Amino acid sequence: MTVSDRWLLPDGVEDILPPLAGRIESLRRDVMDTCQRWGYQLVIPPLIEYLESLFTGTGHDLELQTFKLTDQLTGRMMGVRADMTPQAARIDAHTLGHEGITRLCYAGHVLHTRPRHMLTGRTPIQAGCELFGSESEAADMEVISLMLETLRVAGLPRIHLDLAHVSIYESLIGEADFDRDTQEAIFDAMARKSVPELDELLGQCPEHSAGARLRALARVSGGPEALEEARSILAGASAELDAALEKLGRVSEMLSRDFPDVQYGFDFCELRGYNYHTGLVFAAYVPGHGDAVAKGGRYDAIGSDFGRARPATGFSLDIRALVSLGERVQTRPGAVWAPADPDPALKGVISGLRMTETVVCELPGGAGSNPVEQGCDRQLVKRDGQWVVENLG
Amino acid sequence: MTVSDRWLLPDGVEDILPPLAGRIESLRRDVMDTCQRWGYQLVIPPLIEYLESLFTGTGHDLELQTFKLTDQLTGRMMGVRADMTPQAARIDAHTLGHEGITRLCYAGHVLHTRPRHMLTGRTPIQAGCELFGSESEAADMEVISLMLETLRVAGLPRIHLDLAHVSIYESLIGEADFDRDTQEAIFDAMARKSVPELDELLGQCPEHSAGARLRALARVSGGPEALEEARSILAGASAELDAALEKLGRVSEMLSRDFPDVQYGFDFCELRGYNYHTGLVFAAYVPGHGDAVAKGGRYDAIGSDFGRARPATGFSLDIRALVSLGERVQTRPGAVWAPADPDPALKGVISGLRMTETVVCELPGGAGSNPVEQGCDRQLVKRDGQWVVENLG
Repeated sequence: MTVSDRWLLPDGVEDILPPLAGRIESLRRDVMDTCQRWGYQLVIPPLIEYLESLFTGTGHDLELQTFKLTDQLTGRMMGVRADMTPQAARIDAHTLGHEGITRLCYAGHVLHTRPRHMLTGRTPIQAGCELFGSESEAADMEVISLMLETLRVAGLPRIHLDLAHVSIYESLIGEADFDRDTQEAIFDAMARKSVPELDELLGQCPEHSAGARLRALARVSGGPEALEEARSILAGASAELDAALEKLGRVSEMLSRDFPDVQYGFDFCELRGYNYHTGLVFAAYVPGHGDAVAKGGRYDAIGSDFGRARPATGFSLDIRALVSLGERVQTRPGAVWAPADPDPALKGVISGLRMTETVVCELPGGAGSNPVEQGCDRQLVKRDGQWVVENLG
Repeated sequence: MTVSDRWLLPDGVEDILPPLAGRIESLRRDVMDTCQRWGYQLVIPPLIEYLESLFTGTGHDLELQTFKLTDQLTGRMMGVRADMTPQAARIDAHTLGHEGITRLCYAGHVLHTRPRHMLTGRTPIQAGCELFGSESEAADMEVISLMLETLRVAGLPRIHLDLAHVSIYESLIGEADFDRDTQEAIFDAMARKSVPELDELLGQCPEHSAGARLRALARVSGGPEALEEARSILAGASAELDAALEKLGRVSEMLSRDFPDVQYGFDFCELRGYNYHTGLVFAAYVPGHGDAVAKGGRYDAIGSDFGRARPATGFSLDIRALVSLGERVQTRPGAVWAPADPDPALKGVISGLRMTETVVCELPGGAGSNPVEQGCDRQLVKRDGQWVVENLG
């Protein structure tokens, strides 16, 4: 992007040009096709909704990320979607209203008031899958497996998957019973993993108290050994916490068996970007890129404001970012040049070729109508009264 | 849509559910593939831009249709795109900056503050093609032919194509030299084809004056006979008007030869929805639907504000509307049900099937996890230790 483009387009907003646009479209199709072959049905949620619907059941972060608009027809406030997952939950709970299992997938632009991360823009192309109606571990496994499969389709090398459980933090902070301001300060320090701040906020808590456990957990992350450490920090705390740690252990074990090439880690206080999650959450990373390339998790409560609390889990990713990071082999098919020629037979020949090929027609008088500049590697030539395709010089 | 959905979603904004969403995705792909086989390269313009960029060279209508947002990073005003054609023109003139012919195509959501037509929503899925760098009639012909081809792909029956030329109105109104208020009143009456209002506004104009000619032209529309009538009304008016009528005649003749099934008509004062056009314009209609299903035309000046005035022509359409109107044959492929079974061999069988098929996995304990309700017509069954696909009872 040149300096003058920056003047033309807002920060974090870009034109996607050929051939990158074609690679994005191709990955978008492959990701959607993969999701559909796993039984996820495509929905197209709207770009805008009333604010109440967009934020129902979600955290404050999403509200800050959402551009607001006034509906000229009603005077009510609307927002441009910043995340399509709550839309899918609304569709499952309210618009579809099916009992039993519902699997949905989607892909489309979302808009953020500010970039979520210094590496991302403000107009990601979000694609994702959501599974409603099952609280089973098999549902969590299906969604994580499908996410890893889409990352394979995107050609991402060496994936690191972080597993976490939202209820660990929720349960400890609930038990500790801090005042609201302190709670917010702890959440903020946890989200930034600021150990000095946490020491200050929680340093006075007695041993084995919830506060002391939070402080200790904030220092723990990594592979299987981190899970062991967490078990000893949380020993005897509560049945709920034991269950959360057991789930993390079982899921990581099953995943290691199915996806042995992926590296697994645990992060017990991961809070960033989980706006509405309630259980097992996960985020995939690749070396050299600080932001998660795909993330998701369980959010069982979000549908209740639309009339039905449904078990739910899912993941989403940014197709735009995946294309930059992936190593997909791109074959760029050539094209055939058709000269401007009044022969009426030529039209039929071009139509026939276009069933499978790209044919670019010469336009009269256009300076720079050069076949090679137009991406052509072959041309239509008349030989003995017949139009044939020949390689370009 | 139920009453309670209407409460949840703003007017003119909808959830697109399965199977309609799948049909829209399928048509979107086929339209984009068609455009690419004609040599049009995909671009993905941004959802939002600064207002100056969105409105440069366009009419006032587009400004009224555009939702405005404040950029929190700079405090400048941005808009959500209401039309992607000016974005493509900006990309051609400024971002790409190629000499010679540039062919671009795109598909994506646009947003309108109000529905353009009582039949359309506020979030159409606009797809289109734009051809820059050629002022030739062959360029007009290519774009119209490609538009008709995409309508064929969409399965639209019995297409009526209206041809018009923006410079007929522009030239006459310029010559007549009315004051600004009268000009606006005439434009408004013309756009609504209100003959009584035009009689009142133009009834006093002397015979053979530009005003009298405008008034007479407003009553003329239809097939080849309308073109004859227009010729006699505009006889001796100016070389520019003669050239415009001649172009309409030639283009309609060439199109009749190439697309004999299409019905052709002329409308000399068509102004609605042409926000930035400068020459030959066209709109396709189907019986029983009052709004154009696709439209476009020449807009040679729009790039000049981005530094380069380029000859330009193109068309766009609403994929969402086309799917409702088209008669595409949709094959709905079935799916295979995979039971929840601990056999490790089953995973490999499912992966293999998913190369080409949809496989839906049973999830334990989900009420309503019924294979048929999940869209399956076959199931995986273990026979003599082997997993085989059988039809569902």
